Amino acid sequence: MRVGLIGGGTVGGGVCEILRTRGAHLAQQGAELQIVKICVRDVAKKRDFEIPAGCEVVGDPKSILEDDTIDMVVELMGGVTTAKDIIMAAIAKGKHVVTGNKALIAANLPELQQAVKAVPAGSFSYEAAVCGGIPIIQTLKHDYVGDRVTSIMGIMNGTTNFMLSKMAIEGASYDDVLAEATKLGYAESPPDFDVEGWDARSKLAILCKLAFGVHVPEESIPCMGITRVSLEDFKYAHQMKCTVKLLGVASMNPDGTLSAHVSTCMVHLTNQLSGVNGVLNCISVTSENLATCVYSGPGAGRFATANSVVSDMAMVAKGGGRGDPFLFNTEIKVVPEVNGKFYIRFTVKDGIGIIATLGRLAMESQISIDAILQVAIENPDQVPFVMTTDTTTLSAVNKLCAAFVKEPYCQEKPLVMPIM
Amino acid sequence: MRVGLIGGGTVGGGVCEILRTRGAHLAQQGAELQIVKICVRDVAKKRDFEIPAGCEVVGDPKSILEDDTIDMVVELMGGVTTAKDIIMAAIAKGKHVVTGNKALIAANLPELQQAVKAVPAGSFSYEAAVCGGIPIIQTLKHDYVGDRVTSIMGIMNGTTNFMLSKMAIEGASYDDVLAEATKLGYAESPPDFDVEGWDARSKLAILCKLAFGVHVPEESIPCMGITRVSLEDFKYAHQMKCTVKLLGVASMNPDGTLSAHVSTCMVHLTNQLSGVNGVLNCISVTSENLATCVYSGPGAGRFATANSVVSDMAMVAKGGGRGDPFLFNTEIKVVPEVNGKFYIRFTVKDGIGIIATLGRLAMESQISIDAILQVAIENPDQVPFVMTTDTTTLSAVNKLCAAFVKEPYCQEKPLVMPIM
Repeated sequence: MRVGLIGGGTVGGGVCEILRTRGAHLAQQGAELQIVKICVRDVAKKRDFEIPAGCEVVGDPKSILEDDTIDMVVELMGGVTTAKDIIMAAIAKGKHVVTGNKALIAANLPELQQAVKAVPAGSFSYEAAVCGGIPIIQTLKHDYVGDRVTSIMGIMNGTTNFMLSKMAIEGASYDDVLAEATKLGYAESPPDFDVEGWDARSKLAILCKLAFGVHVPEESIPCMGITRVSLEDFKYAHQMKCTVKLLGVASMNPDGTLSAHVSTCMVHLTNQLSGVNGVLNCISVTSENLATCVYSGPGAGRFATANSVVSDMAMVAKGGGRGDPFLFNTEIKVVPEVNGKFYIRFTVKDGIGIIATLGRLAMESQISIDAILQVAIENPDQVPFVMTTDTTTLSAVNKLCAAFVKEPYCQEKPLVMPIM
Repeated sequence: MRVGLIGGGTVGGGVCEILRTRGAHLAQQGAELQIVKICVRDVAKKRDFEIPAGCEVVGDPKSILEDDTIDMVVELMGGVTTAKDIIMAAIAKGKHVVTGNKALIAANLPELQQAVKAVPAGSFSYEAAVCGGIPIIQTLKHDYVGDRVTSIMGIMNGTTNFMLSKMAIEGASYDDVLAEATKLGYAESPPDFDVEGWDARSKLAILCKLAFGVHVPEESIPCMGITRVSLEDFKYAHQMKCTVKLLGVASMNPDGTLSAHVSTCMVHLTNQLSGVNGVLNCISVTSENLATCVYSGPGAGRFATANSVVSDMAMVAKGGGRGDPFLFNTEIKVVPEVNGKFYIRFTVKDGIGIIATLGRLAMESQISIDAILQVAIENPDQVPFVMTTDTTTLSAVNKLCAAFVKEPYCQEKPLVMPIM
């Protein structure tokens, strides 16, 4: 199979390296892959990988798209504008497309599904788009085909998991771990895509489609990132036998609707996700036939991501990966609501009647209080304390918080985390 | 695709139930599966599942094998004699074969590989054979195709993991947990296949083939089951920040050979496998591109196992699963040796000079002692104590133990466990 590669960066270079070292092994297994053209922005730039023998380095993607001898287009340039044009053109020409571009897929999912369906000669594969080296796309496509997923949750962003693990294990501050993550190249500057949870949200949107058959527009998913997490939260987490993780969560509600959210969460230490630290990702899938299965592995990195790209390329070369890349469609209603128990951290100026007021507000919001927790008071003008709730809704919690911020002793917007 | 099912027991019934409830969903995804015949020993026996509409219940497998309208044979009868004849006949006829029969595959792997190769029209799939609901076969086939696995280790037997978890968490004795596992139907009577590690060994043999391309005859794999594990070992485990697990392990040695063993092991609490309890299975795969990925899920059970069978059936119906079912062949030399650190529990009658002798024997076996551990002595005639070693070999440890048992104060054969 003749391949045109778009993008000669970290992952593209990893793909070339894997094909160079493992090409014979792949061929032995029936996957003959030859990169015949690489399209890069600057053809003169020295690359940190070996250009495959006989491969032409080009500057114009048309040179690949209009080459009828090229069967497969591997898009690893990133971005959602030019990359989209290239992918749409490749699909329209019946080429096999392999990509790791999660933002592009999440933003254009129904359009991509339609386009692939219209030209059955081609195919569209994207294992690398979600959680780097974890074969979660393939697993959802293969192992849940006769099953019914009821919930999916996981650590879908390695950068924030690295940061939260450092805070949990070393007691480092948010600012320090962000600086370290930036220095190590894990976080970009500005780090919003990671720390606000937007990267995880794209991945969750794709997983919702595969697991539940429903397209959930990213911007409709409630998203509470890690920017307000402080060491205080880890102290309370310790009291609660929990740790703090940024999770993407989607689960079927008893009424047949689906709830999806990305949130910094309090995760019980008995939950397998609590022990997954550093840049690792981890996805937990609960279904009718399998109960809970957990898949963990590297969420990013040159060879982990490139490995998923190569796995897709090999699958397609061996004749697989055809059909609807997003499996099936359902008409499940998605509600922007989170059901469950919550952790709410308030910061107040110490005084009389605060708990009485909170009790009244909770009652008015129909929230049953599970516990009030407080670590030692250091500064009476800035007293953090925590309320945990019994099962309720994020709407109810938000209503309570909106009322509480109007109280004169309230020092900042309460921090809300679901408890998992 | 017209299917003949051999076996109407737990898993066979689960397959029928899944196809009944999820058949339309499978068809929507391009997998039309119709069970047209079920072969059972006693056609008159009432089944605990609904016989599919239009399906004939037959007593003779020939009725399926010789029916040219049947495309796929799903073997779920178990056993290694009649089942083998049936599978070989189905393969020879170019039918697609799906099975969950790990003992049969492990015992006949090269023969099966040859037979499938000889008739390219058919295929052979066996996701259900290893670790029930975990899609480890598919993952090794798909996600490691361009990678190089360096080690694979895991909890491959749910029954013993249930038992060891109970001992660890509740402090229950071996005899009590075995009785409970038998009562719950997890352990058979006699429980040898589980507790001696033979079931895990079959699975490890199959995983060795997929991960390393090498056929390792089961009987050549050193196998140390859980029958001698006592609560003392959990006390030492606690001291060592470990727990006790039965693991199947295969890893490449620096000299290019492969070591494989099934052993009761001391597993550090930092190792993800240590937190996988109950009847769950868990496989950890380390490779060049992905570092370590971990997959956990139900190791057994009607619907978990049947789900893997249905996943294979759907894959084949959609045109996948063709080609060499065991991927590739290599000529790696397998050595019946275990390299690493070891835990050795001795039981002695208390006396003078025991440690001095042990020190001398360790020196003679070229073993560097890491620590000598002892919990409080309760009975001076039966004193357990533990030696942990630095990196060495199982051969050296066995040599030391063989010498030690000759000492007059030695009360029983030392218990050896690798430390992971």
